[in-house]
Amino acid sequence: MAVLEFWYEFASTYSYPAAMRVEALAATRGVTVAWRPFLLGPLFAEQGWRDSPFNLYPTKGRYMWRDLQRLCDALGLPLKRPDPFPQNSLLAARVALALEGDDRAAFSRAVFHAEFAEGRPIAEPATLAAALAAIGVEPEAALMRAQEAANKDRLKAECARAKALGLPGAPCLVTEDGEVFWGNDRLEQGLDWANGAERGGCR
Amino acid sequence: MAVLEFWYEFASTYSYPAAMRVEALAATRGVTVAWRPFLLGPLFAEQGWRDSPFNLYPTKGRYMWRDLQRLCDALGLPLKRPDPFPQNSLLAARVALALEGDDRAAFSRAVFHAEFAEGRPIAEPATLAAALAAIGVEPEAALMRAQEAANKDRLKAECARAKALGLPGAPCLVTEDGEVFWGNDRLEQGLDWANGAERGGCR
Repeated sequence: MAVLEFWYEFASTYSYPAAMRVEALAATRGVTVAWRPFLLGPLFAEQGWRDSPFNLYPTKGRYMWRDLQRLCDALGLPLKRPDPFPQNSLLAARVALALEGDDRAAFSRAVFHAEFAEGRPIAEPATLAAALAAIGVEPEAALMRAQEAANKDRLKAECARAKALGLPGAPCLVTEDGEVFWGNDRLEQGLDWANGAERGGCR
Repeated sequence: MAVLEFWYEFASTYSYPAAMRVEALAATRGVTVAWRPFLLGPLFAEQGWRDSPFNLYPTKGRYMWRDLQRLCDALGLPLKRPDPFPQNSLLAARVALALEGDDRAAFSRAVFHAEFAEGRPIAEPATLAAALAAIGVEPEAALMRAQEAANKDRLKAECARAKALGLPGAPCLVTEDGEVFWGNDRLEQGLDWANGAERGGCR
């Protein structure tokens, strides 16, 4: 079964609908999703951006918020704009990485829901503890594991890998043959590629 | 019949597949397309960009070229990377604006083809003259009209309108009720909105 990497960032607006959609879309194509949380901050800093491009470039930001609202409306997803935006996503990413398999995916969806549907502060351990409890993971132990040196180093390695892959933002799908598909609006295309449909037909 | 504005920039990579796709998609939805050429340069300059963001931010640029190749492959569109990129699109935009209706659309597609399928220099009057001749418009008169002061002012007004609409890039669709859809990958969504499908179902 083809494995597709789903690279996402908890502070990223378009990662929210993508995280909510990707598993159902993958199931219809017989593709397995590997959830890879990472941080955009280090990549953006290298471009000279010390804030979200959506804040640095207000025209893009205004467009994005309206676009995201339309997308969420069409998908039936609640949307509450995080304040401040972007949220600090470091701890959430560490906790997600300290979990494996279905737990990581379920926790990640719970965090996106808390952040973008409920407007809760995801930098707060209490918010993440509630998300862990909701998916049946003991919060205290998971938060401890998240802050261990080995896990912090693992997240740094994931960010280095994201850079090596040339990810231009989040979310991204990365196929086994190294193709990158950027954006919530490219999930279907990336999944079709992973499933071999496009490789057979269009190259 | 709903009218949808198609805002495009001749130097813009994603405007190429969009220009080639938009009329067929609109026809299936009973939507009329109004072709609105404009220039991104003045909008980008206000963001502090003196070059294409795809050149200023190489990670984005590398991704875009690969993404565009995949898109063009899937659509059966030839792709030859313009050199230099971006091309100077001022004269092409003026000529397009000096034409009306079907002539403007046909000329615009011919220019995109010359630029992105054949790699020809669209700043050269000879390239534009060939595009005009190919669609049955007398080149010399059209190039003269393009350079008249009134037409130059009209293009400036179009750029001011693009800014007032908050267009974050090109291509964009703008609906009669003021919704903006940015990107070749949003043509279907914008056309559905213009056709009332999404307004009825999702707001």
